Amino acid sequence: MTEHEFYMDLALNNARAMKGQTDPNPLVGSVIVNDHRIVGVGTHLKAGEPHAEIHALRMAGDHARGGTIYVTLEPCSHHGRTGPCAEALVKAGIKRAIIATLDPNPIVAGNGVKILEDAGIEVVTGIREREAQSMNEVFNTFIVEKKPFITLKAGTTLDGKVATHSLSSKWITSEEARTDVHQLRNENMAILVGVNTVLQDNPALTSRIPNGRNPLRIIVDSSLKTPLDYQVISDNEAETWIFTSQRHDKKKRLQLESHGITVIETNGRNRVDIVEAVDILGKEGVSSLLVEGGGNIHASFLEQRLVDKVVLYFAPKLVGGSTAPTFLEGEGIKEMKDAVELADTDIQMVGKDFKFIGYPIYKNTKR
Amino acid sequence: MTEHEFYMDLALNNARAMKGQTDPNPLVGSVIVNDHRIVGVGTHLKAGEPHAEIHALRMAGDHARGGTIYVTLEPCSHHGRTGPCAEALVKAGIKRAIIATLDPNPIVAGNGVKILEDAGIEVVTGIREREAQSMNEVFNTFIVEKKPFITLKAGTTLDGKVATHSLSSKWITSEEARTDVHQLRNENMAILVGVNTVLQDNPALTSRIPNGRNPLRIIVDSSLKTPLDYQVISDNEAETWIFTSQRHDKKKRLQLESHGITVIETNGRNRVDIVEAVDILGKEGVSSLLVEGGGNIHASFLEQRLVDKVVLYFAPKLVGGSTAPTFLEGEGIKEMKDAVELADTDIQMVGKDFKFIGYPIYKNTKR
Repeated sequence: MTEHEFYMDLALNNARAMKGQTDPNPLVGSVIVNDHRIVGVGTHLKAGEPHAEIHALRMAGDHARGGTIYVTLEPCSHHGRTGPCAEALVKAGIKRAIIATLDPNPIVAGNGVKILEDAGIEVVTGIREREAQSMNEVFNTFIVEKKPFITLKAGTTLDGKVATHSLSSKWITSEEARTDVHQLRNENMAILVGVNTVLQDNPALTSRIPNGRNPLRIIVDSSLKTPLDYQVISDNEAETWIFTSQRHDKKKRLQLESHGITVIETNGRNRVDIVEAVDILGKEGVSSLLVEGGGNIHASFLEQRLVDKVVLYFAPKLVGGSTAPTFLEGEGIKEMKDAVELADTDIQMVGKDFKFIGYPIYKNTKR
Repeated sequence: MTEHEFYMDLALNNARAMKGQTDPNPLVGSVIVNDHRIVGVGTHLKAGEPHAEIHALRMAGDHARGGTIYVTLEPCSHHGRTGPCAEALVKAGIKRAIIATLDPNPIVAGNGVKILEDAGIEVVTGIREREAQSMNEVFNTFIVEKKPFITLKAGTTLDGKVATHSLSSKWITSEEARTDVHQLRNENMAILVGVNTVLQDNPALTSRIPNGRNPLRIIVDSSLKTPLDYQVISDNEAETWIFTSQRHDKKKRLQLESHGITVIETNGRNRVDIVEAVDILGKEGVSSLLVEGGGNIHASFLEQRLVDKVVLYFAPKLVGGSTAPTFLEGEGIKEMKDAVELADTDIQMVGKDFKFIGYPIYKNTKR
């Protein structure tokens, strides 16, 4: 580990400790070092309060002059409640700035660095860049694209099956993995399933952890087949929205609405227009969405390049079956060389199961 | 780590270092400790030469008296070239014996321990038992069951697919994983595929590593469709055996035999009798078999409870497709609760891919 990485890790740790309390702002941490001594530490605590750099400058006082600042996100260049941080660093006499990652918004990225460099401050970027970006992955996507950060999640056997050929599916993964899923649900603003999953499992789609927050429940249901007496409609545990197509049952829509369900009609004639649905969610301020299948819903999201992150729980078991459904169905990709590759992969044990995390790389064009 | 584990690990390390040179004998290591000092170390080097305990006793000399011996396998009770080791330990005045695992053959297991205990030696068994058994997994299966130790291997996408819906399959895994597979082939006496894999890929099924030993190539081919000009028939790189059914093409059989191929007819009327084929391999002295699919062959082996070990290479990519073949097809298991669970699982990175290892547990009856 280099000196830069050592100090940046401290800034990252302080930033991460505020997870959940900075919304809608990102997590940011900062450390000021002068003559090989830490003279200031700062972290952004809450929207409307000072940015991390300002807290660190205040702690450092006169010791900031001639020092090096480490900050997990490019200092801002806009006039907000605490003024542009970049100008504050210049004023305080900072000599060098080590920045993990530029502003996620490409339109403003580099503006903060420009203010610093114009004032003669040496700037180094890209130290622990991946960690800094991943910490704010939801924020980065939402702020730039105005669309939710979408996580595809599945619990599967080693051979990719989410049910046997007779559609038996209880239980695939261990209790520990299922608890982990409830944590995932708690971290996401909304959870989405297809109507077939509803019909098959009658799930509650709630987050069963202590002090858990239930996500908004979203059903993709082209013709409005969701039964009125199923949990997502009748349990009042969380809000439920149903996206539907032009061919939906109008009478059923009224029934669902009288149960307090929000029914949203997309322009899709026979099937829900997924891209439009995601756009609508973004406009409604849904910054994170957990897609929990089944295999055809997953395939639609992946084909439309909507998936930002993949989380898979592999149970160490095999069921086989040429007709048993896998967690990724649809038509599928034609050539193996065109497979969607996942980067920044990680795998770890959760109970007896293996939890895999990866980020799809879409070739040719961005989504 | 306890004191027992510390010394047993040393014995295990010495045993493992002889991998490949003790056939048909197992790997065995031994350490003698007296008054907290190691006084002897032994390992079995080669069939026909002394067992590990004898080497350790010779090194210890008089210091064996009153000492503790650690041995990775129960000392033998039979009169071989170096006499029963258990009696040699008694004669040398050993006071305590720490044994990792009993003789794998249930008919003789415990006989060595009995000799020791009858002579008043304190015996502890089960220290690092799993490691000791796993080190000799091939030997243990073959010596007891007279059947090859069977490893099912597949290279797959994360969603379990071994090809796309258009049967495109090159390449799924990374070069590093494919090199690892060649090492696997080198460690196995035989490699088995179905005729569909031959027809689709025209594989050589050889071990392309320096000083690699090519395994015996085995094709499961019910009607003898394997083309005469394909690599497994024509390249003379390794021996090829074809197992077939009663309905095979008799003329084609003569052609194959004239190319030096061994054709073995099983009692299966329309499909090769896999259990019979495995029995025949055992009788022919094939102690280890690598089954490299496809999905229907894998399903047959798993249904017949013939698989001892599963090795999967997961490439971090997704292809989807409800008709894309997975590495485990067939009819499949009906109820999720009856899935074949894998124990002693391990996962590690090989290049960009994840290598999974596990051991099937068959419920109700042993295979």
